[in-house]
Amino acid sequence: MTSTRGATIGIGMVGYAFMGAAHSQAWRTVHRAFDLPLTPRMAVLCGRDRAAAEAAAAKLGWASVETEWKHLIESGDVDLVDICTPGDSHAEIALAALAAGKHVLCEKPLANTVAEAETMAAAAAEAATRGVRSMVGFNYRRVPAVALARRLVAEGRLGEIRHVRAQYLQDWIVDPEFPLVWRLRKDKAGSGALGDIGAHAVDLAQFVTGAAITGVSGLTETFVGERPLPGGAGRGPVTVDDTALFLARFDGGAVGTFEATRFASGRKNALRLEVNGAAGSLAFDFEAMNELAFHDHTEDPELGGFRRIQVTEPGHPYVGAWWPPGHGLGYEHTFTHEVRDLLAALAAGEDPEPSFADGLQVQRVLAAVEESAAASSVWTRVGAHGTG
Amino acid sequence: MTSTRGATIGIGMVGYAFMGAAHSQAWRTVHRAFDLPLTPRMAVLCGRDRAAAEAAAAKLGWASVETEWKHLIESGDVDLVDICTPGDSHAEIALAALAAGKHVLCEKPLANTVAEAETMAAAAAEAATRGVRSMVGFNYRRVPAVALARRLVAEGRLGEIRHVRAQYLQDWIVDPEFPLVWRLRKDKAGSGALGDIGAHAVDLAQFVTGAAITGVSGLTETFVGERPLPGGAGRGPVTVDDTALFLARFDGGAVGTFEATRFASGRKNALRLEVNGAAGSLAFDFEAMNELAFHDHTEDPELGGFRRIQVTEPGHPYVGAWWPPGHGLGYEHTFTHEVRDLLAALAAGEDPEPSFADGLQVQRVLAAVEESAAASSVWTRVGAHGTG
Amino acid sequence: MTSTRGATIGIGMVGYAFMGAAHSQAWRTVHRAFDLPLTPRMAVLCGRDRAAAEAAAAKLGWASVETEWKHLIESGDVDLVDICTPGDSHAEIALAALAAGKHVLCEKPLANTVAEAETMAAAAAEAATRGVRSMVGFNYRRVPAVALARRLVAEGRLGEIRHVRAQYLQDWIVDPEFPLVWRLRKDKAGSGALGDIGAHAVDLAQFVTGAAITGVSGLTETFVGERPLPGGAGRGPVTVDDTALFLARFDGGAVGTFEATRFASGRKNALRLEVNGAAGSLAFDFEAMNELAFHDHTEDPELGGFRRIQVTEPGHPYVGAWWPPGHGLGYEHTFTHEVRDLLAALAAGEDPEPSFADGLQVQRVLAAVEESAAASSVWTRVGAHGTG
Amino acid sequence: MTSTRGATIGIGMVGYAFMGAAHSQAWRTVHRAFDLPLTPRMAVLCGRDRAAAEAAAAKLGWASVETEWKHLIESGDVDLVDICTPGDSHAEIALAALAAGKHVLCEKPLANTVAEAETMAAAAAEAATRGVRSMVGFNYRRVPAVALARRLVAEGRLGEIRHVRAQYLQDWIVDPEFPLVWRLRKDKAGSGALGDIGAHAVDLAQFVTGAAITGVSGLTETFVGERPLPGGAGRGPVTVDDTALFLARFDGGAVGTFEATRFASGRKNALRLEVNGAAGSLAFDFEAMNELAFHDHTEDPELGGFRRIQVTEPGHPYVGAWWPPGHGLGYEHTFTHEVRDLLAALAAGEDPEPSFADGLQVQRVLAAVEESAAASSVWTRVGAHGTG
Repeated sequence: MTSTRGATIGIGMVGYAFMGAAHSQAWRTVHRAFDLPLTPRMAVLCGRDRAAAEAAAAKLGWASVETEWKHLIESGDVDLVDICTPGDSHAEIALAALAAGKHVLCEKPLANTVAEAETMAAAAAEAATRGVRSMVGFNYRRVPAVALARRLVAEGRLGEIRHVRAQYLQDWIVDPEFPLVWRLRKDKAGSGALGDIGAHAVDLAQFVTGAAITGVSGLTETFVGERPLPGGAGRGPVTVDDTALFLARFDGGAVGTFEATRFASGRKNALRLEVNGAAGSLAFDFEAMNELAFHDHTEDPELGGFRRIQVTEPGHPYVGAWWPPGHGLGYEHTFTHEVRDLLAALAAGEDPEPSFADGLQVQRVLAAVEESAAASSVWTRVGAHGTG
Repeated sequence: MTSTRGATIGIGMVGYAFMGAAHSQAWRTVHRAFDLPLTPRMAVLCGRDRAAAEAAAAKLGWASVETEWKHLIESGDVDLVDICTPGDSHAEIALAALAAGKHVLCEKPLANTVAEAETMAAAAAEAATRGVRSMVGFNYRRVPAVALARRLVAEGRLGEIRHVRAQYLQDWIVDPEFPLVWRLRKDKAGSGALGDIGAHAVDLAQFVTGAAITGVSGLTETFVGERPLPGGAGRGPVTVDDTALFLARFDGGAVGTFEATRFASGRKNALRLEVNGAAGSLAFDFEAMNELAFHDHTEDPELGGFRRIQVTEPGHPYVGAWWPPGHGLGYEHTFTHEVRDLLAALAAGEDPEPSFADGLQVQRVLAAVEESAAASSVWTRVGAHGTG
Repeated sequence: MTSTRGATIGIGMVGYAFMGAAHSQAWRTVHRAFDLPLTPRMAVLCGRDRAAAEAAAAKLGWASVETEWKHLIESGDVDLVDICTPGDSHAEIALAALAAGKHVLCEKPLANTVAEAETMAAAAAEAATRGVRSMVGFNYRRVPAVALARRLVAEGRLGEIRHVRAQYLQDWIVDPEFPLVWRLRKDKAGSGALGDIGAHAVDLAQFVTGAAITGVSGLTETFVGERPLPGGAGRGPVTVDDTALFLARFDGGAVGTFEATRFASGRKNALRLEVNGAAGSLAFDFEAMNELAFHDHTEDPELGGFRRIQVTEPGHPYVGAWWPPGHGLGYEHTFTHEVRDLLAALAAGEDPEPSFADGLQVQRVLAAVEESAAASSVWTRVGAHGTG
Repeated sequence: MTSTRGATIGIGMVGYAFMGAAHSQAWRTVHRAFDLPLTPRMAVLCGRDRAAAEAAAAKLGWASVETEWKHLIESGDVDLVDICTPGDSHAEIALAALAAGKHVLCEKPLANTVAEAETMAAAAAEAATRGVRSMVGFNYRRVPAVALARRLVAEGRLGEIRHVRAQYLQDWIVDPEFPLVWRLRKDKAGSGALGDIGAHAVDLAQFVTGAAITGVSGLTETFVGERPLPGGAGRGPVTVDDTALFLARFDGGAVGTFEATRFASGRKNALRLEVNGAAGSLAFDFEAMNELAFHDHTEDPELGGFRRIQVTEPGHPYVGAWWPPGHGLGYEHTFTHEVRDLLAALAAGEDPEPSFADGLQVQRVLAAVEESAAASSVWTRVGAHGTG
């Protein structure tokens, strides 16, 4: 018995750690939940250590293994390259894939520098003229509650936006004896909380409001300057920020506060967003990801109040493919929805969102925060700094 | 490249509606997330309409199709029969499968009558002596927060249990124009809210407390007596309960209130449980399924209070196989965990839980509630009634 | 400078423990917050021990002291008798006061038996024909959120009521070494959790729904049978219920579950009410007394959800006399509002609510619960039992 | 019968609007709830319009009236001057009162300029040498949950503080047709949201953490530039900030974000504070003022989580004087507690807190925010600017 649901597309994935496992779950599941014009084939997994990569491929469901990402790109089985490696290799892999005519899904951050991100965005724009598509993996856009938030803003239910409060709070390095992993080294990770999780907060705020951040005043701090080396051989310096805070202005006139930290004890994955508009307000916290709080300011004030919308109705974004009302989704579904939208765009011959240009805009905001933080928090225009 | 992770087990599933889709997701995923000694093969899907069943098999990932469940049982490819049909066919299919030496996973309620359930439990006990295993699908036991609740009670963190409050609240038939679907007909569904969702509340309360309900005082009500027939040809009588409420005593001395309804406007899938003990208390609501509220009554009262445990730590039940802290799971994971435990038990040669005997005990409670409701709510001992 | 705000009314209060302190705060404050046609004078406080009563009067603001309640009733300074004693003396004092032509505010429960309550209600009805008014102190009706809940139901915002869930949960006697205070002795208190706090839950449910409970099925339990005597001389038997649970039907067709307990560890004063109707639902918990949760079931389901109304708007019941939005009130304000309504009724020559007849109806429900509990939980009609 | 509870102190209050009503409630009540060595006499109320002042005095419980605040200060009946006027008159009245040897309670903000505040702080320090005491009215310190938060930090339960998030969110001028009241005019109010409500957020954060803000980067915005004049005669310019946001560093190494706004639709009086430390975290929101959320990071992570402490236990700050557990307090109690602490300090011959020096420190922070906002958000040291 063969599937009669149309064409397939060969996927090649580079990297198979946390993000690779999450993406694999998405690729395995997306056509089981959604009716799609294009069915993914999990063709090739790439990892440097063949034995480990083969074990991962067997567990995660990939048909074959490569140890060189260039071979993966060249493979005739691969139509789309899914980049799940650390940020310092994104640019090289993505540029090669696009040049080879392969679609690209690239995990965030798009790159470790604005310069790289600019090159990538330019390459993506050029590739699009050839029908080669690219997307950056801001998966939190695909939380149904977040997509509903965007819809409410777009429909004008919030009126003119005044305030944004965006935070991404974690606590996994509160303990000063937590080791100096690669995410705490600037050469590998580019930045610390700012790029790793702050990038999500920036994208989320811009996506939901539909407005771009135009300028910032930033502050960064490293609370724990030295940590044990992973091997146990003494201690080494932490070279990234432990936290980044900034004030922002949006092109629609709104103002906002942003914060990213891994030192908020008790907050595990609190990607939180509050938006206040003249006609209503929203609040979201990923720790309760199936809910959106909405206040309709046009109501009778005696009956008004933030309502807890369970974003599990069939008409809510993405939800119709899943379970009945009240039967919530989990973290991994954000990736399933991401690849759903990507496959739908590919089948339609359209550019998926968020684009590399969107990823570049986020990088420019992060760069402006770092620049401001290095210059006594002075107001810094996004895109106006030296490297941007 | 082949998997080297040991033996496989052929699965045959009967039915492919809501439960069938959820079970399929579990069978496709379980070995991708967990390291298991036994890997499921999704061998056969059974449905009466061949074309529809083939479409479902293609979408859900089953290798072949049968239109007669007896053929599925006989299939050499099938080692385990997964029963996802309405309750009126559970007994016949399960008995045949056990007789044929096939393991059985049977959706709840185990059967539509206590007599059927007794027969099934006896057959399961007999089959177990032959190494043929059976399990009833009370999937909510596999919510990590529920499993943690059970662990806390078992560890004595709540002390002697005094109070149980269990509710399963939905609202999908509040509208009197909602049609007379099969779930509202006694011949098909056995009972209404009581058996469909009340069964989950009963199992949950008994599972978490580790205590059995020994007697009840019940009340049932049908608010909307007639509804439009699905075809549009007039109206027909609702022959099941719209709601069931009961008081209960547990064998450890606790008392409880129970309620199941589909008329609680605004509650979508609120399976809620509160347990108060001499040393602590718990509260759970499936609408926030990744959280457990816990109060430690042995603490300094000035610092005490219900804490919101995010049940997403690696040491929490089932969670280690998934994502980092704060990255929650969804409804479907309850089934993935269910089949994980089932496969682990099969590989170990042990009886999985909940057993058919557990399912029978729940049926006896439900029957006692109906019997009490029919006799002016008089106290009714569980298992002591005519059919039990 | 003298007040020019009209007539005064002399208040005499019997008892000065917890309730006496709360009532004193109300009498001192009510005319400072509200514009009233009648200003209370705190004339006489009655307590058996003169020295203790004088100290209490000085602290609480009463002008003089009596040690015999009969003298208080006879005092020419006293126009209204406020009864804050334990339930076993309510009937005698209230009957004497009404006979003497004094208005009466009587704390709940109205009496310890239905027979006493019937006599009191009859006397109150007779007194009303003479312009002598009476009121029973179900103060929780005067929480602004509760009054708003009543308003919403009365306006039809909930449609036909289907479900009531009412609980009054405390935890002050979880410890079995807590002493055998008078509230745990039937001769003094009449009953345990049932009459002390269950009475509030019953009144609240009937008040908010506007429907009367017509029948019940009850269960009571005493978890700790013996406790240390207060003096330290050994142990004595607990002669009241530790908890009472019951199912109920209301005259409008709704069904409900009720629970009163002092063994719900972690719940301090959780008087909780949920009401589900065909058009909407409400939820209230006194532990967050300035909030009302409301779900409007007539809304677009994609935007619906329980909203948290902060009941602090000027148009909300009682709130206009106090502070700006968001500046909440406390427990004691329920008494201030209670005497506000009482004084307004007196000035208007109307009967205040809740009346003694309302108090009697609550007593009849409690008696039916006890009767049912003593008769294997069999359904028991309210008002149909021997003593009612 | 006379009170035997010791000496009295004559109070004179200037102003009788919102703050005056709240303070009156405190002065009337404090000795009724608390056992105090010093009992307040509500001697003189001052207002410019005699008739209105007399009506207010009658309603609020003041014995006499003056129309000139200088006469109030000179009155032999007045030992303590309570200043409840707008900020532009604070300095003059307070300086005169201190010079006359009268104790002073001054509402916040201490003054409209740093220069005035410095003069007042110096005068207060000098007066203290003569036994004349002064206090500034940051009443939110006296919310029991806030005082408990301070206690937990002081006891080291949070460890080293890393993060502060402080917001004061209201929504009363979201509507652009809301009139141009005096609080929107710089000449009267000094500043807008920054001084009116941001001052509370600053004091709260410094009080709870026990750390001083040393530098800031600020941003202010006026969303609605013109509003209707109150009289109805056209429109006038808004000359204060509608919102102020800033980043901050504390002298203990913590960093923070601050926000004050009256444009957060749906937030009524959301004075919110989150503090994250190495050993634990706190969260508070005045909209649920009887609760404190506390996370103990030293616990087993599988049982950890923010607990909801109901700050209503007898051992909690201020609570023992009031009602049993679970019976919460309201906004006005913050003032009752404030004057309790003031009277206790006076009786003990000690300086009450917060002092005028504390008020000055807050003013310096606010001035630094304005200075930074006017200078492209550049980092600005508190106390280092021109006027400080």
